[in-house]
Amino acid sequence: MNDMTTTSLQQSEFKIVGTRPARPDGVDKVTGRAKFGADLYLANMLVGKVLRSPHAHARIKSIDTAKALALPGVKAVITAADFGDLPSEFIPAGEMMVNFKDMTRNVMAREKALYEGHAVAAVAATSEAIANKALKLIRVDYEVLPHVMDVVQAMEADAPLLHEDMYTINVEPRPAKPSNIAKRVEFALGDIAAGFAKADIVVEREFTTQPVHQGYIEPHACVASVSEDGQAELWCTTQGQFIVRSFCAKLLGMEVSKLRVTASEIGGGFGGKTVVYVEPLALALSRKACQPVKMVMSRVEVFQASGPTSGAKVWVKMGATRDGKITAAEAVLKYQAGAFQGSPIQPGCMCAFAPYDLENVKVVGFDIVTNRPKVAAYRAPGGPISEYGVESVVDELAQKLKLDPIELRLKNAAKEGTKAAYGPKFGPIGLVQTLEAARAHPHYKVPLKANQGRGVASGFWFNIGGETCAALNLGEDGSVTLVAGTPDIGGSRASLAMMAAEELGIALEHVRPVIGDTSALGFNFLTGGSRVTFSSGMAVIEAARDMIGQLRERAAKIWEIDLKDVTWQGGYARAVRDPAKKPLSLADLANTMGKTGGPIVGNAAINAQGAGPSLATHIVDVEVDPETGKTTVLRYTAIQDAGRAIHPSYVEGQMQGGAAQGIGWALNEEYIYDAKGHLANPGFLDYRIPVCSDLPMIDTVIVEVPNPRHPYGVRGVGETPIVPPMAAVSNAVSNATGIRFTELPLSPPRVLKAIEAKGASA
Amino acid sequence: MNDMTTTSLQQSEFKIVGTRPARPDGVDKVTGRAKFGADLYLANMLVGKVLRSPHAHARIKSIDTAKALALPGVKAVITAADFGDLPSEFIPAGEMMVNFKDMTRNVMAREKALYEGHAVAAVAATSEAIANKALKLIRVDYEVLPHVMDVVQAMEADAPLLHEDMYTINVEPRPAKPSNIAKRVEFALGDIAAGFAKADIVVEREFTTQPVHQGYIEPHACVASVSEDGQAELWCTTQGQFIVRSFCAKLLGMEVSKLRVTASEIGGGFGGKTVVYVEPLALALSRKACQPVKMVMSRVEVFQASGPTSGAKVWVKMGATRDGKITAAEAVLKYQAGAFQGSPIQPGCMCAFAPYDLENVKVVGFDIVTNRPKVAAYRAPGGPISEYGVESVVDELAQKLKLDPIELRLKNAAKEGTKAAYGPKFGPIGLVQTLEAARAHPHYKVPLKANQGRGVASGFWFNIGGETCAALNLGEDGSVTLVAGTPDIGGSRASLAMMAAEELGIALEHVRPVIGDTSALGFNFLTGGSRVTFSSGMAVIEAARDMIGQLRERAAKIWEIDLKDVTWQGGYARAVRDPAKKPLSLADLANTMGKTGGPIVGNAAINAQGAGPSLATHIVDVEVDPETGKTTVLRYTAIQDAGRAIHPSYVEGQMQGGAAQGIGWALNEEYIYDAKGHLANPGFLDYRIPVCSDLPMIDTVIVEVPNPRHPYGVRGVGETPIVPPMAAVSNAVSNATGIRFTELPLSPPRVLKAIEAKGASA
Repeated sequence: MNDMTTTSLQQSEFKIVGTRPARPDGVDKVTGRAKFGADLYLANMLVGKVLRSPHAHARIKSIDTAKALALPGVKAVITAADFGDLPSEFIPAGEMMVNFKDMTRNVMAREKALYEGHAVAAVAATSEAIANKALKLIRVDYEVLPHVMDVVQAMEADAPLLHEDMYTINVEPRPAKPSNIAKRVEFALGDIAAGFAKADIVVEREFTTQPVHQGYIEPHACVASVSEDGQAELWCTTQGQFIVRSFCAKLLGMEVSKLRVTASEIGGGFGGKTVVYVEPLALALSRKACQPVKMVMSRVEVFQASGPTSGAKVWVKMGATRDGKITAAEAVLKYQAGAFQGSPIQPGCMCAFAPYDLENVKVVGFDIVTNRPKVAAYRAPGGPISEYGVESVVDELAQKLKLDPIELRLKNAAKEGTKAAYGPKFGPIGLVQTLEAARAHPHYKVPLKANQGRGVASGFWFNIGGETCAALNLGEDGSVTLVAGTPDIGGSRASLAMMAAEELGIALEHVRPVIGDTSALGFNFLTGGSRVTFSSGMAVIEAARDMIGQLRERAAKIWEIDLKDVTWQGGYARAVRDPAKKPLSLADLANTMGKTGGPIVGNAAINAQGAGPSLATHIVDVEVDPETGKTTVLRYTAIQDAGRAIHPSYVEGQMQGGAAQGIGWALNEEYIYDAKGHLANPGFLDYRIPVCSDLPMIDTVIVEVPNPRHPYGVRGVGETPIVPPMAAVSNAVSNATGIRFTELPLSPPRVLKAIEAKGASA
Repeated sequence: MNDMTTTSLQQSEFKIVGTRPARPDGVDKVTGRAKFGADLYLANMLVGKVLRSPHAHARIKSIDTAKALALPGVKAVITAADFGDLPSEFIPAGEMMVNFKDMTRNVMAREKALYEGHAVAAVAATSEAIANKALKLIRVDYEVLPHVMDVVQAMEADAPLLHEDMYTINVEPRPAKPSNIAKRVEFALGDIAAGFAKADIVVEREFTTQPVHQGYIEPHACVASVSEDGQAELWCTTQGQFIVRSFCAKLLGMEVSKLRVTASEIGGGFGGKTVVYVEPLALALSRKACQPVKMVMSRVEVFQASGPTSGAKVWVKMGATRDGKITAAEAVLKYQAGAFQGSPIQPGCMCAFAPYDLENVKVVGFDIVTNRPKVAAYRAPGGPISEYGVESVVDELAQKLKLDPIELRLKNAAKEGTKAAYGPKFGPIGLVQTLEAARAHPHYKVPLKANQGRGVASGFWFNIGGETCAALNLGEDGSVTLVAGTPDIGGSRASLAMMAAEELGIALEHVRPVIGDTSALGFNFLTGGSRVTFSSGMAVIEAARDMIGQLRERAAKIWEIDLKDVTWQGGYARAVRDPAKKPLSLADLANTMGKTGGPIVGNAAINAQGAGPSLATHIVDVEVDPETGKTTVLRYTAIQDAGRAIHPSYVEGQMQGGAAQGIGWALNEEYIYDAKGHLANPGFLDYRIPVCSDLPMIDTVIVEVPNPRHPYGVRGVGETPIVPPMAAVSNAVSNATGIRFTELPLSPPRVLKAIEAKGASA
């Protein structure tokens, strides 16, 4: 039931798609009524707190919890001993492959603490003060070990070893010794040496990026309640209630259906809320205490122990002919995974050169563990890092070839029929259209002044589909409740309701979208991979078509005519062969549904296929203060193919949000660890994400190259916008200063140092 | 999709049906974890309180709320002016017909207050103390009117008139004057005069019953939260979240889908939680205050202003031949409706003689308004009242004919093929079987001592089906979440899960039943009419069969064989023509469902047809203390046809609960109003429902005459058990004392008075 490749409505026929109604979750969010992860209160609720490792790397010799447990008001204390160990194997969880041996150790350190802030025990008590006091009564006997923070050092033969049993996979012969290199990845096409031989010019650079945090405002928070008979409820802030259910059930040795997970409103996730931290701990504490347990991470805990994306070393070499044809492209990517294997090295490798139509490509990647928090997905995971390197080199190639950087990209742009290095042939994609729109944009023609520079970069992201359910429950007055199973992080309640109303032919106000808990629908993969408007949208359209089929049947029954003689058009059942019959509205049919056969429900349960990649081109103008090295973003224009923009404001919001996060990554964000592996800046005062005053209004241009495999042409749009900014900003700073930068962030000290070095050498 | 008349499993094949597992909601209820109507807490929640009329009948000349509204901490004050008026017409709401003109006036008095405790205004404030203070600041200018409490007085021509515009319907010619008689009902069969002419003996009696309250332990309670954009959430204790949604949406002028209603756990309902009282007030207050509002009725409010069942006058005349063949049966029933039309007079008339196979019958009923709270459904609404009269007369007939009362009933018992006076021909029913079981029961043979008496009575209740949805959501480990839309008041989570497990062929522990809110499913009629195990059970079985179809398809796909060559048996897909293929379990297919097509969900949305009447026979032994008139119940045996007892313990629980309530109705429960129409006993100390020490252990015998129109043979069982007790107890007291009683309750003063009168006349 998931082949929905026909676009049944033409653009000109859309009545609701493409408009900009107010979002259904808007009022509750601006009034404070919306309930986020920490906003649920239950009777007899305990406070859960985590004891965390002060060491970046240490063997846990013993944990003594007796004194903590004896403290009046303490109802439960847990350690890794409260979780069963799980074998090291990759198990599918929705569209992900998960190693639960690692996950159980990440949520609660077992043999070793692997990073500062790694959970080693947790308590539940009747008050926060008692819980904090109890944490101090837990005695952990550590054997402190040497640690390694940097990806290059971690690859060295004599580096401190995080996992004694980790042998690099995908290499021949199998390594004789364990190492910090979890795996090697390679994608190649054509003959890389022959490609470079054809080049008139070659640029080769090595880039460095820092881990950056997803920077969601709302910390991880949850309330768990486990009954004595093993039935459990969990309320939490997450991008995927079904994935949380899946993970927690596995970690706690429960059946999934025994655990009902409700996704609260979410105060930002950006990939960082696709994993679990306090959720299994709260469940384990509640199971032990037989009372509900609330856990809320502090900002310090979020920085110390929740996933940033990888820091990396990115080596890129590209060759081109004098007229701007890229003949060869090669990259080696080394991504930090943090304490457990699983950096986004694979998508990083796949994305690296994806925007280009290349004959000869080779990308090799390494997944490397370090004594840092395990990385988590962050918006287009892996893509921004590799494409930052590639788009910087493309810019330098253009500079050296004296070609306009957009022209160079147009000469080499991937398009329909291009075979990507990672395998597939692209269907219709919109890179060329974004480049042409960029070239034509007024922004691209504004003259620059002294110390100002312009940067351009393109970006690619796959987008995914996956398992998705939706239900449309018809109310007896003809209004409709839409149930989706994917948390709304970017306005999807609006876009899904719009598609339902469009398909049913009714006014949007008659559709109320609701995010169901895990009991309300079949399995749904999480909100991520830019999949929701695509996949849940496809499910909603299929559910609407299911409902329309039933509405036509009811009308046929009422009219006593053949089903085939009833059409559904503009919100009415119509008798094709008897125009005298008064059309029956959705409300007419809803009013009588009891008598005509019972309730009417439209359902869909699909594994959505056919997600279309979204490509973007960004233009940025900056001014670099030569006295301080501070970069000011003067103007920013993000151009992106949305396939079909269901609600253009939220597509633009995604483009603006991604650009803002990318600018932070480019200019300011970094983790500062001291020599002992202690994080020096675990807070928003010292870890600087951009605030409004740091940014201009970000202009947007939506390009629409419909995705033929979605009934309305939708592509995912949420992730691609974070791919171009780092290269665009770096290219702009390079152009403003005449210095080619290869390291992020372009913070004032770093830029000033380079300017001073250049001045000294001049 | 609602013709499920084939019983696919034979009794001998049931593995789970008929067993007695622990209920899924049991632990939460005994530990106090279960959340009832008053157990939800929201941030910024206000307390709502109701100002109620001190008069039984008064015109409301004006209401001044200004001072209340000015009190600091008061956030909203409402009166009837906050609700739109609604036309007087009967509108279908699920399987009910509702007059919203009356409903809006019952939840908030408009032109007149019609009973003591009738709501006239409500406030929402930041504390209960402030809310109570605010109520005292509301000035209501009443013109007190004469009132009428009794059904006979209310029918008199010069009675105080409750509704100036109410003219009796169903009478010819249309009355020239309004009256308190809302309608006349008549059912007849044969020739009543000819029937009596054939009789050798005629008994004629007039009976009086008092209104009795459903006596649920949990008062009505709710929390409403309405957003500025009109989206609303309501948490409440109810027998039907969809009906509450329907009612409140209509009363507040909202679309149903804008209102999401969650049914809390319910602390008893028995029909009394099928209507709304504080729910629309809380919504109106929240809409005005833009904050959540909690309202909880006090016990006094519950007694003064929530529905009891009717008090009534029941005149019965029956004639029989000397050998015990009943030749004619006639009744006139006058039922109190309370302040607004709508007593259960219709089902009362339909039930009256339903247990008997009669040629000549006539029943006339009247629905009469009085200055009392509007009656609400109470377990088999209407049936216990009329059948009390009939079964008392049948007992007297047997006495006069010197026939065993069971023999007399067996001679006249309705059976398959009997045409009921109210229309239909019965299918297979189990009255004869219950009578035979009663006759054979050891209880019936125990000798009686002085002052002891034995009573027997039978009882009939229709049972209903109606609109019902269910979903089975398959977890990725093969466990299943069952979503039902009917609140669990009697163990239906257990019985529904058992039917799902039985049908799917898996262990019960793999099914987790959940009661969905109104967003989770299509429309569901309420928990009432003994319909849930029948209707939701039918929906669950249909949903399971829907899921099995998909499981077979997936197996066929995996095996690359024809669908028709795959069966589902004992929890496994099996390749019929290739026994070498390893059968695939539900878990096997769940693990791979993403790859084989997506999530698997079994759905059903039906209007369940084919509910089968359930009949019962009760035997009771009493001892009457001639010194005090106190009746002690010595032994009680309830025998009932369950069709198929899915979970026998909960069937027995229903039989015991109904008997206990009926004993209270028979012996003690009554409203005591003073001359001004003020209720003198609005509390459980003075309104005596039976407590454990008042009752013996109630024995039960389940008879199973499968209902052919349910796939497992289920009949509803919840209501029938309250039908026989009043007559059974009254017959027993009559036999113990030698006095024929015709008035309830048989409280010690009444019985003593009769004993003394008999002694005086002897």
